[in-house]
Amino acid sequence: MAAQDVTLGVDIGGTNTVFGFVLETGTCVAESSIPTQSGDPAERLISRLHERIDELYRPLAGRYIMKGIGVGAPNANYYRGTVESPPNLKWGPVTNLAALFKKYYDVPVAVTNDANAAALGEMLYGAAKGMKDFIVITLGTGVGSGIVAGGDLIYGADGFAGEIGHTIYDPHGRECGCGRRGCLEAYASASGICKTVLELLADRREESELRAIAPQDLTPKIIAGAAGRGDPIAQEAFEVTGRILGLKLADSVAHTSPEAIILFGGIANAGALIFEPTKRYLEANLLNIFKNKVKLLPSGLKEGNTAVLGASALIWNELRKKK
Amino acid sequence: MAAQDVTLGVDIGGTNTVFGFVLETGTCVAESSIPTQSGDPAERLISRLHERIDELYRPLAGRYIMKGIGVGAPNANYYRGTVESPPNLKWGPVTNLAALFKKYYDVPVAVTNDANAAALGEMLYGAAKGMKDFIVITLGTGVGSGIVAGGDLIYGADGFAGEIGHTIYDPHGRECGCGRRGCLEAYASASGICKTVLELLADRREESELRAIAPQDLTPKIIAGAAGRGDPIAQEAFEVTGRILGLKLADSVAHTSPEAIILFGGIANAGALIFEPTKRYLEANLLNIFKNKVKLLPSGLKEGNTAVLGASALIWNELRKKK
Repeated sequence: MAAQDVTLGVDIGGTNTVFGFVLETGTCVAESSIPTQSGDPAERLISRLHERIDELYRPLAGRYIMKGIGVGAPNANYYRGTVESPPNLKWGPVTNLAALFKKYYDVPVAVTNDANAAALGEMLYGAAKGMKDFIVITLGTGVGSGIVAGGDLIYGADGFAGEIGHTIYDPHGRECGCGRRGCLEAYASASGICKTVLELLADRREESELRAIAPQDLTPKIIAGAAGRGDPIAQEAFEVTGRILGLKLADSVAHTSPEAIILFGGIANAGALIFEPTKRYLEANLLNIFKNKVKLLPSGLKEGNTAVLGASALIWNELRKKK
Repeated sequence: MAAQDVTLGVDIGGTNTVFGFVLETGTCVAESSIPTQSGDPAERLISRLHERIDELYRPLAGRYIMKGIGVGAPNANYYRGTVESPPNLKWGPVTNLAALFKKYYDVPVAVTNDANAAALGEMLYGAAKGMKDFIVITLGTGVGSGIVAGGDLIYGADGFAGEIGHTIYDPHGRECGCGRRGCLEAYASASGICKTVLELLADRREESELRAIAPQDLTPKIIAGAAGRGDPIAQEAFEVTGRILGLKLADSVAHTSPEAIILFGGIANAGALIFEPTKRYLEANLLNIFKNKVKLLPSGLKEGNTAVLGASALIWNELRKKK
């Protein structure tokens, strides 16, 4: 049997770096991970990765040929192949990540942030297969987004397009990690919904099992569990989150008129608890011409290796464009 | 001398329909206009137009060859060539405008709304020449927008993308013509800034020459004139408009990271009165990575026939894509 083409997908996170070899169909044939060791310089991470990638590749080498490397990393810039002052990584202002990989591998290397990689993953293998216009929103520690219009990911003039998490819900609202106030991220991220619970506990007199949990121990999963048991504060926290998310997504629809919006990761795992109010408030805030047109979908990527699939989709997409 | 290629640009407005022949360089070689007669059916308008287009073309026929027709019209759909329930025109729910032109002319016909046409006009002949990522905002009776990303106008899944005028500034704000509340258009349109003046006159005790003008007679031009003479209410009205416009445009930058935003028509003609506060509040609300990167520019199209240039740019752009 002829050797099959694979790409390598690498996702660099603050804690772990996961990587794997992926077929064009989206099947991951092998994957592994190493601790990122965020205090180390980038060169050291790529050197350690290189050893482990080779280890993973060795038994596959006869059957698969590696055609390219896609890398997802925080603050990564698609145009420059760089990572610029990543939060949680002590890499300094600018690291040319693509060049570091090129030292070891003579194949095309593409770099982008994790939300853009997720969007390409959904387009090639997931819920957006066959779509040309859609938006992926990643609801995690932060709120990221990847916007696809006319079949192409929007990178913008500088490679940093798709920051829907930092559109402004309320200019006088909560502090955001970005230094401003009232960004969508300050409400729809994991810490955002926890803060909404605290506000509700302060405002309401209702009993809630969440009153027994120290604020620092609160998580979206705990809130979802309580909501499932009928806790009114927990349920209201999802209602508030969906209201704010739905309102801001209506603005996003007015920009690019997507066929679908895909909610990915973190809070999206709470299912109907977040999808139902988000959809309701999205529809309530849409301009007439967009009403009842936009699907709100969960990720179509397999749990577990979504980050590797997204990073691999980035480079598969590049290789297709070159054909 | 060999005959030169021209396209026909047609802009259908509620009052007048303007049309003209335009070279690929953006030079308009002849133009004219007829009353739209908005109570008539579309067939009648196109039949009348056809006669006048032929009249305009006859003396040019030896020197120029018409290669295509671009049409700008309210609520026009690029994908379908249709105009759907246009406000101010009694055409019924859906009119296939492209097909009506095709009855008379055997050339490619493309249709879009006036803001999208304006964006293509700026890209081909105006302030966005050579740019691949920019946004045009039309500040007129309504607030329209055309968004270009990666060199392509964003039409979205249904052809209706680019409705930044209907992103929401305040869900409990002013009534908007679209039936919702608090859209950017309700503040940054011609009637929007007039309403801001009324709010300020109600709120403040300061003297103002605008207190002598009946609300129905107020216009952005009158407000700009008063602001120029140092009227504090008029100046504050531009400050408020720029604050709201700058805030919402920061959200737009977070979506597509444009190299420039071009303010077009209507209030944009007030120059520094609107550009200065808009730029200041845009910068104040931008995410760090976008600060001091986005140009805020006036239109680069010649006054007078901008609508014809935009419509002609639409079809020149199509003809280029086919090459």
